[in-house]
Amino acid sequence: MRTVVWEQDKVLVIDQRKLPGTLEHKTCKDYREVAYAIKNMLVRGAPAIGVAAAYGMALAAKEFSNLDRAEFFMELDEASKAMAATRPTAVNLFWALRKIEGIIKDNRHKEPREIYQKVLKAAEQIANEDIDANRKIGEYGSKLVPISSNILTHCNTGSLATVEFGTALGVIRTAHRQGKNIHVFVDETRPRLQGARLTAWELAKEQIPLTLIPDSASGLLMKRGKVDLVLVGADRVALNGDTANKIGTYNIAVIAYENKVPFYVAAPVSTIDFGIETGSDIVIEERDKNEVTHIEDIPIAPKGVNVFNPAFDVTPAEYITAIITEKGIIEKPSAEKLKGLREKGLKER
Amino acid sequence: MRTVVWEQDKVLVIDQRKLPGTLEHKTCKDYREVAYAIKNMLVRGAPAIGVAAAYGMALAAKEFSNLDRAEFFMELDEASKAMAATRPTAVNLFWALRKIEGIIKDNRHKEPREIYQKVLKAAEQIANEDIDANRKIGEYGSKLVPISSNILTHCNTGSLATVEFGTALGVIRTAHRQGKNIHVFVDETRPRLQGARLTAWELAKEQIPLTLIPDSASGLLMKRGKVDLVLVGADRVALNGDTANKIGTYNIAVIAYENKVPFYVAAPVSTIDFGIETGSDIVIEERDKNEVTHIEDIPIAPKGVNVFNPAFDVTPAEYITAIITEKGIIEKPSAEKLKGLREKGLKER
Repeated sequence: MRTVVWEQDKVLVIDQRKLPGTLEHKTCKDYREVAYAIKNMLVRGAPAIGVAAAYGMALAAKEFSNLDRAEFFMELDEASKAMAATRPTAVNLFWALRKIEGIIKDNRHKEPREIYQKVLKAAEQIANEDIDANRKIGEYGSKLVPISSNILTHCNTGSLATVEFGTALGVIRTAHRQGKNIHVFVDETRPRLQGARLTAWELAKEQIPLTLIPDSASGLLMKRGKVDLVLVGADRVALNGDTANKIGTYNIAVIAYENKVPFYVAAPVSTIDFGIETGSDIVIEERDKNEVTHIEDIPIAPKGVNVFNPAFDVTPAEYITAIITEKGIIEKPSAEKLKGLREKGLKER
Repeated sequence: MRTVVWEQDKVLVIDQRKLPGTLEHKTCKDYREVAYAIKNMLVRGAPAIGVAAAYGMALAAKEFSNLDRAEFFMELDEASKAMAATRPTAVNLFWALRKIEGIIKDNRHKEPREIYQKVLKAAEQIANEDIDANRKIGEYGSKLVPISSNILTHCNTGSLATVEFGTALGVIRTAHRQGKNIHVFVDETRPRLQGARLTAWELAKEQIPLTLIPDSASGLLMKRGKVDLVLVGADRVALNGDTANKIGTYNIAVIAYENKVPFYVAAPVSTIDFGIETGSDIVIEERDKNEVTHIEDIPIAPKGVNVFNPAFDVTPAEYITAIITEKGIIEKPSAEKLKGLREKGLKER
């Protein structure tokens, strides 16, 4: 299952708002539709957003390839800004847009039509690299999963959050395929219920045993010793290892720490923002209050109530046992270790 | 507003499942209807459940007062068992039933009609004592609330959870009425959303400023220093101070501890179970999976998914800054201090 795909000069994404009820694709005919799909979470998950944005730029390059060069660059700049304005926290979005901008810049003396081909190729490469990175994350991460494990996970980090395989869920998938005896506790993940709607659906499809829980039951489970490890994804990792991820991740990390349960973050290197020192520099998106006050059209709170709805929180590095990347496992993450990852690559474990 | 009331030989309860949409009373004509109302959470909250059960016994005593004495006692015993079988965690239920059983035993030589009058009087007394205890909890507790405070609360501990005034919400109410500058962060409290549906409604009615949050946003708020204190209720307190309360309370307590935010439990002495040493002896109710998989009739998870839905968790005493009772404030609760509360009463602070 591919979440984001380029097909006949259009971008197809799975409309995740409709799962688990129906598996439906949305066809994005231009970059504006891609921006809409990202902003309104038809497509979500840091890696998937990055790839969708890259493909969106390919759509823009195609749309404007008949213009003269000056106008072409101006329109592409416009498109890039529109894409960047969709969601502020996941760094893969900006990382992918920067990559595409680099391609455009490197080829600025070529014809628009040719630049479009280069952009499309780069977008395809970003997508393929994500699939590849996920597989490697799965292989590295599965080494951390005991032969018989109860794993707690939060939000959705599977096929639907990436291009194809998944980060934290990719680790779970790999361990399961290795024949390990895996059972997953799935946080429902309020307010948008990505755990209940998406992760439970993905795991069930692959017949990986799971139990859905309200987010607030994770503490009781860890206290009772029912959780062997926590595996989550990331939307942005700061240089020191502080990690922004779906709201509630910090809660789990603190409780895991208190109960001596290992807490792992699985994320490709593209999720590391080498440009910020600590998590306090990460912008946290706040989303519409309706996500909290309504389920579909049913009100579940008094009319007009004041709501705070942050989409993410930041888990300080000190609570993170290790970060699992496609370049290896970084235990006790720190600025020094992450710098090493960027500069020298990481020796295999 | 009275949540449970005896009126014209019937028990009226607010049907809390219909709030905040409509304020509707359900009339219970016999004890079976009271048991149904408790089991299905038309009436909920440890103190309210205790009072409803006592009134339910009065209904039973009335219903069977035409029988001969032997049959009368047998039927009352049956009614008491039916009431006790509704919900296992909140100790006020068993405490109230034991009180009523004591009344029946003390008056066993009297006529059924007369015993009914005694039972009804005892039920009225339990209700009035709860109101009185709540007021005192409010007065004691408000001393712990700084003049300008952001308070985090979980579930519903207000009028709706008691007979009239509330425990943790009674403290908030009192502090607000004293003219303190109070703002409340209300956890929505999945899966039944008592925070979103009931607490937000009660606070809004009294014009106490509030912000509704998903349960998982409590960590971010505490980490950012936005919470001055946590105030929750209790369903059962063990002799050593371990406290069973709505699922997710333990999560909040651990995160509060980690962030040095005071964590207070407000509960009447009737919520303390002097018969159990620690929280590990408290039976935790598990409720229907539909509470997690559906909102009203809308499915929010794949069909047939496995669910774990514990209604409560246990917060170890070490995380509790103080327990606020009608007999005073017990800081750093311990078996010694709670024993003292029972045996000698507590010196006023």
